[in-house]
Amino acid sequence: MADVKRMEIQYLGDQRYVGRNEAGDQILIDGSEDTTVGVRPMEALLAALGTCTAFDVVSILAKRRTPVASYRIELEGERADEHPRRYTKVRVRHVVSGEGITQESLERAVNLSHEKYCSVAATLDSDIESEAVLDR
Amino acid sequence: MADVKRMEIQYLGDQRYVGRNEAGDQILIDGSEDTTVGVRPMEALLAALGTCTAFDVVSILAKRRTPVASYRIELEGERADEHPRRYTKVRVRHVVSGEGITQESLERAVNLSHEKYCSVAATLDSDIESEAVLDR
Repeated sequence: MADVKRMEIQYLGDQRYVGRNEAGDQILIDGSEDTTVGVRPMEALLAALGTCTAFDVVSILAKRRTPVASYRIELEGERADEHPRRYTKVRVRHVVSGEGITQESLERAVNLSHEKYCSVAATLDSDIESEAVLDR
Repeated sequence: MADVKRMEIQYLGDQRYVGRNEAGDQILIDGSEDTTVGVRPMEALLAALGTCTAFDVVSILAKRRTPVASYRIELEGERADEHPRRYTKVRVRHVVSGEGITQESLERAVNLSHEKYCSVAATLDSDIESEAVLDR
């Protein structure tokens, strides 16, 4: 049987939404014009991609016994001019520090994630460009 | 110049992440094994899709002077068995109530979103199946 993920989203009014997974964990997404209390849908998509690939990189480096000490992921998504204004290109910049991590091992982890493991990257129909930055 | 969206994500340890958009709005994504305080990346992806298309449906129905009174979006993503376990198929069920909304006008709004406006749907390389349910 196929593995299925489920989410249920409730509309809160004024283009604000709360989503819940099967365990009851929540996510707030907000497209209201004036005040926002959460990120917008296309920003949540970038966050899903960034955290999915970071998840792999953290795991891969931990298995090599060079755990991550700090990690920042910077994402930029370029949108098409015409509706539906999809992301044509997404840049993912991994800024990582940790004892024993080398530029080469970081790049290998980042590439392995994008090519083999990251489920979000594999679900996107965008050109994804990664950069690995070792932060000393 | 292309329209660019930016997100910056900080690793909090134990596979927990906080993302911030340019306005400083936050999103919490959590892949820790034992306790979770936020949804996982592949769940955040479903939430991005559900809220993106709901955003359109709410706008379209408001413009027709039949505003939404209640709205629930149920999403199911089927994953491939093999790594990277992408979503092959996503089902989106729109459950909507509101005075003057008809099954036909709701279906039209849902289809218009998926075919023309929803940026997240257009960015995904998944088969997306929509269902419109008028909740009286």
